[in-house]
Amino acid sequence: MDNPVIQTMLNHRSVRKYKKDQPSDEIVETIVRAGQQAPFASQLYSVLLSRKKKAPFGAPLWFIICVDLYKLERFMKIRGWEVVTNDLSLLFFGIQDAAYMAQNMVVAGESLGLFSCFLGAAPYQAERIARDFKLPPRVFPLVGLVMGYPAEDFPPRPRYPLSFTLFEDRYPEFTDDEVAAAMKVMDDGYLAQGYYVKQKAKIPIEVDKKDAFTYDNYSWTEHIARKWGQWYRSPEELTEQLRKRGFEITGKE
Amino acid sequence: MDNPVIQTMLNHRSVRKYKKDQPSDEIVETIVRAGQQAPFASQLYSVLLSRKKKAPFGAPLWFIICVDLYKLERFMKIRGWEVVTNDLSLLFFGIQDAAYMAQNMVVAGESLGLFSCFLGAAPYQAERIARDFKLPPRVFPLVGLVMGYPAEDFPPRPRYPLSFTLFEDRYPEFTDDEVAAAMKVMDDGYLAQGYYVKQKAKIPIEVDKKDAFTYDNYSWTEHIARKWGQWYRSPEELTEQLRKRGFEITGKE
Repeated sequence: MDNPVIQTMLNHRSVRKYKKDQPSDEIVETIVRAGQQAPFASQLYSVLLSRKKKAPFGAPLWFIICVDLYKLERFMKIRGWEVVTNDLSLLFFGIQDAAYMAQNMVVAGESLGLFSCFLGAAPYQAERIARDFKLPPRVFPLVGLVMGYPAEDFPPRPRYPLSFTLFEDRYPEFTDDEVAAAMKVMDDGYLAQGYYVKQKAKIPIEVDKKDAFTYDNYSWTEHIARKWGQWYRSPEELTEQLRKRGFEITGKE
Repeated sequence: MDNPVIQTMLNHRSVRKYKKDQPSDEIVETIVRAGQQAPFASQLYSVLLSRKKKAPFGAPLWFIICVDLYKLERFMKIRGWEVVTNDLSLLFFGIQDAAYMAQNMVVAGESLGLFSCFLGAAPYQAERIARDFKLPPRVFPLVGLVMGYPAEDFPPRPRYPLSFTLFEDRYPEFTDDEVAAAMKVMDDGYLAQGYYVKQKAKIPIEVDKKDAFTYDNYSWTEHIARKWGQWYRSPEELTEQLRKRGFEITGKE
């Protein structure tokens, strides 16, 4: 069950420190071409690249993968058609198209010695990215992806046990003990790597709640709980960015 | 720039005809494990598997990759937290998590000789899938993925030229001729493979518009235009499925 593809995937790490070496144009094009060959609904994506701007973590390559309905609408116009599909459905398909291509880029990069890190905040910076790259309407930045040769090394990060991920025929009724066992795999795994203490990544508690954690016991489940327990309360921030890019998820105006 | 990973990706095909051979449990587990190791926001996914039900295209494996907030909420409760993040943002992150894992599964499968095909209608069948697999609330079926050993062979399908996909520093102002050139690559590529005539896949025109196409000239851009020019007009079908699974994208009730 072992081969270079499986090995590359199991060896994945999100890297946050890069060498300055600039990958060649040929490498960049190979990675994007491998991305393009992913399965798609309608190739509803575009890839932005910046090699001049100072990228996060000092990466030489800074991609932003976008959901792109503009190209679709341009060619549909030439064919005498107008998009009638609602924007929410288009986003569901477009996000998948863009993500399938992005993940191929991640793995293709790693097969060539380039590691990467997704930057999930792009949707919340859509207006600024649109201005920087002069995006036409109906192009929405989904995710940033910095890439380069790694200047740090560490083992792959832990994942849930397979029994907490793959469910045949029916979704199990988990007991609290079973949930706690899956949490422990994640928490012990990150603690053993000293991940949060090295990154100084502890998220402060902003609500009325005592912080019972030090870097000795602060790990993945507490970290993730503090994100989704405190951040992004209102959908307005995202719907506003979508609206400015020409997307109305609750129906056309 | 060539290696087994890039080769596997460039060789991708979505297969719609399978041999009956059932892949071993070890193969299935290897594929899902490779999927799990993809980068993620918070492992907001689960993978359903059916090997008993008659799958589309006679495939031996029928996966459904879901956005899963249920497991997150179970462990957050144990940690003394509640999700406050809005559902739209959670879906943006969750769809990406699920899609990154799904695309790793596609490529891992192909490296082991198993090909696959995404089935995009899962979100519109969410209620039925939830009943079949006894899904808890806050688990949303994103995409089906049938997989098996291929019983058909054909070349990889065409893709947009790189110049219509990768944009450095700024998004180009395409002329109609440039758009038409990208369309021609797709249309000529699919016509040369006889794709639509073999699949008998022409989409009927349901609106007041003359059908000027035969299988001699019906190709990718016309096909795609007929989808998004006719299907899924209202977001209600999708928001209703989301609502039944416990997602309110316009804000909690």
